[in-house]
Order: sequence, then C-alpha cells, then structure tokens
Amino acid sequence: MATFDSRLSNQLHHRTIRRFLPAPINPATIDALVAVAQHTATSHFLQSFSMISITDPQLRRQIAAISKQDYVAGNGHLFIFVADQHRAWQIAQRAGITATHLGSADKFLQATSDALLAAQNVVNAAENLGLGTVLLVSILNDPLQLIDLLQLPRLTFPVIGLIVGVPDQAPQFKPRLDSALVHFENRYRLPADEAARVTAYDEVIREYYATRDTNQRAETFSHLISGSSQVLPAHRGDLKAALSQQGFFAE
Amino acid sequence: MATFDSRLSNQLHHRTIRRFLPAPINPATIDALVAVAQHTATSHFLQSFSMISITDPQLRRQIAAISKQDYVAGNGHLFIFVADQHRAWQIAQRAGITATHLGSADKFLQATSDALLAAQNVVNAAENLGLGTVLLVSILNDPLQLIDLLQLPRLTFPVIGLIVGVPDQAPQFKPRLDSALVHFENRYRLPADEAARVTAYDEVIREYYATRDTNQRAETFSHLISGSSQVLPAHRGDLKAALSQQGFFAE
Repeated sequence: MATFDSRLSNQLHHRTIRRFLPAPINPATIDALVAVAQHTATSHFLQSFSMISITDPQLRRQIAAISKQDYVAGNGHLFIFVADQHRAWQIAQRAGITATHLGSADKFLQATSDALLAAQNVVNAAENLGLGTVLLVSILNDPLQLIDLLQLPRLTFPVIGLIVGVPDQAPQFKPRLDSALVHFENRYRLPADEAARVTAYDEVIREYYATRDTNQRAETFSHLISGSSQVLPAHRGDLKAALSQQGFFAE
Repeated sequence: MATFDSRLSNQLHHRTIRRFLPAPINPATIDALVAVAQHTATSHFLQSFSMISITDPQLRRQIAAISKQDYVAGNGHLFIFVADQHRAWQIAQRAGITATHLGSADKFLQATSDALLAAQNVVNAAENLGLGTVLLVSILNDPLQLIDLLQLPRLTFPVIGLIVGVPDQAPQFKPRLDSALVHFENRYRLPADEAARVTAYDEVIREYYATRDTNQRAETFSHLISGSSQVLPAHRGDLKAALSQQGFFAE
C-alpha cells in the first residue's frame, strides 16, 4: 500500500473482528456510541433511523440463527440499525397529517441511508476507542422473522447489524481491488484492460487465501464473485415481501 | 451534551459544511480517500461499489441543478458513490455465468450498503484530515437524468454524493433528538412519554432556528417532519422507474 497520512491509519488498517473477549462494553461507551450515531449527517435533518441494543441472550441466539453465524451469539455488544419512518409517521399524525408519502421508495432509501451512515460512523468511533467491529448484512437472511422478533412496526426496516467488542483475534490484512477498477472520472467506465487487472487481483487473492493463518483455501476474487452472483437467500423473494409488509416501496 | 471520550471528539462535533475555500484537494489526498473507501467493511468481501470523481465543471453544474443546491457547483471535490453489481456481472460473464441474481432486491441492498458505508468512512477520513464534508442524497432528485449523465450501466445505481473540501464556514452545533426516542432495547418501542419528549425537542429546535447566526426562522422538528412526510420529488415514481431501468428489484 502507498504511504498515507498517519491520521488515516485506523481506517486503512481496518479489519473485521469476529471473535471478541468476554469483557463487557460499559454503559458509558454504549451511550457514547449512540451519541456518535446521532451526530452522523442525516438527510434533511430528519434523523430517520433507530438503533436496537440486543441484550436478551435468547433473542441474540435467534438473530445468530438468522445470520447463520455462530459468532453473532458470542461476545461483544450487538446493535441492529433500523430505517425508521414510523417515528415520523407518529409525529405527522399528531400534527393531523395522515396521508403521507413515508412509504415511498424515496423515503425508504433516505431512511436506509441515514441508518447505514450511522452504522459506519459507530464502526469508526469504536475503532478510535481501540475496539473491534463486525457489520452484519446477514441479518437480512430472513427479514420477516427478524421484523417479527424485534417487533418492528410499519414503516421501519432492519438494515444492518453491528457487533462492537474487545478483539480476541488479529486477522491478516486482506488486499482490496485495484483502485482503477473502482474509481472513475466523470462517468462510469471500467478500464480497457479490466480483464487483465481482475486476473492480476485474482492472483493476489489466491495468495491471500493460500497463505493466511486460518481457514486456508483455493479461492480467487472472480470465483467468489461468480459464485455469489448465483446465490439468493433460502427465502427467495422474502426481502420484497418484507418491504411490502412494512409499507415500503408503496410508490 | 454529556462528556465523552476525547477520541470521539471529531465525530461528536460533526457539522455539515456547505461552503468551501477555493483551495484544491491534492491528488494524493484523493487517492488516500479512495483507499479508505476501499478498506471499508464490505459484505462477503464482494466490494460492490464504485466511486466517480466529478472534475468536469459543466457536468458538475448539471449535478448541482439536479440537487437543486447551488453550492454543489462550488468548491471542494465531488464524489458520487455508486452501488455496483455491473463489475460482478462482467466478472461472472467471463467465467461463463450469464444467469445471475445480481438484479435481485437483496443484491441491490447489499451493494447500496457497501456504497453508503464507504461514503461515511470517507467522511470520517476527511474530518480526520481537518477537511469538511457534505453528503448529498439530493442527487436522487432526478435519478434517470443522473444515470444518463454518468453513463451508469445496467446493475449500477447512484446512491449518494459527497463533497470534501477546506471549510469556509463554522456552522453552529445542531442538537439531535433525545436518545430515548432513537435507541431501544431488544425490540422497537418508543417511550410511553414519546409525545412529551418530542414536544421538548421541538422547543430545543425552535430555539436553535430562532437564534442561529444565519437563515433564522420559526421551525420545530415536528413541523419539519410533518412537512417532509408529504413531499415527493417532482419526478414522482422516477426512483422505482430508475431502479427497474438499471435491472434492480427484478426479483
């Protein structure tokens, strides 16, 4: 990697942590992380997200089962970030407004954006405090069940999970794509030598998986991408059904 | 605000900056910010986002017109973050796979998530470097036109804009919602005294708007939320049309 400003060191050395020490995260730290989330930029100052802390061990095991990741039931503090237009609906209703566009695709994306920006801001905050994190899109493997478990009302949607804890592992650096394949100027345009660049990166990733400390395997980026492109969750179509059930994408 | 760990100071004092000095952001800084974006956590290591730097002044004015914000055509460096399953489709196709699920709602949300997490990570990086930022969901006011301007291929979607620059203003602190209205435990549950808490916050926001340095007005949070709940973009329904045109939400 090129040498960059040391003030970016945490971010350039980011590793996902999946194993945490049993050390609890104290309530003051939770409060601080919630405050950071709330100070994230928010579209039109509408603050259209909520956070749920999962402290009930049984509920947490149920969420781990949805995620199909045992470590989700392990140590660390689990937050679920929720796109939230329900609170707005309540406020509007009290102001005498019942016909809203809060179920539109626009309002869904706006709330989802607020929730995801807040989640990453908490990741950065946790890492500034020396803690480790793992973000969990896998909570959406069974959105209908998760909505039921969290008793999410109409006009809310679970977007991402986040575990924060004291790291109990130090994973190796995982090299990213050639930036020429990711960063363009003025229009979307993959470089003319895209295939060659992907092939070169495939070799980098093959080397990474073949030589890393644990769970070595033969794998390239192209293989990973190709495999994933054919995968849908077991409950195919549930995401659209869940969005509809929650009143989103109504217009 | 309660006293929190000084390592969270930048994040707890976050202000959106909309006016930047004419000082250019040097190429090494742009490269560093792209590297930070690429080191953001990414679902299943698929790296499903791209970034476009807007350097063409005319294109930038067109994007400012879509955003309906003059300052978008001003100083600072403008990035557009793109949810990207097109690169995956190219890679899969070269591997002989043409029937993919890359257009599903799941893959759209996964790519959108990658793009938004990366955008916030760049915000944090920029602020660590003493720069200011503004995130622009407003680029979606006319998604079909933006897709056309950026020549975005099938299976890509513009998610958010971000300007990074040297601040030319120091906006006041804007108080956030009572955390009891945002952070819950184990299930979604607004507090029993929700209405009273919103009313109290309305007074805080009324005070903020009445006494801030510029653009003073009479405004409460409830009024802001209620008004916004009734607003759809001028091109109503274009977001769903644009998602469909780009091949997303196909299943």
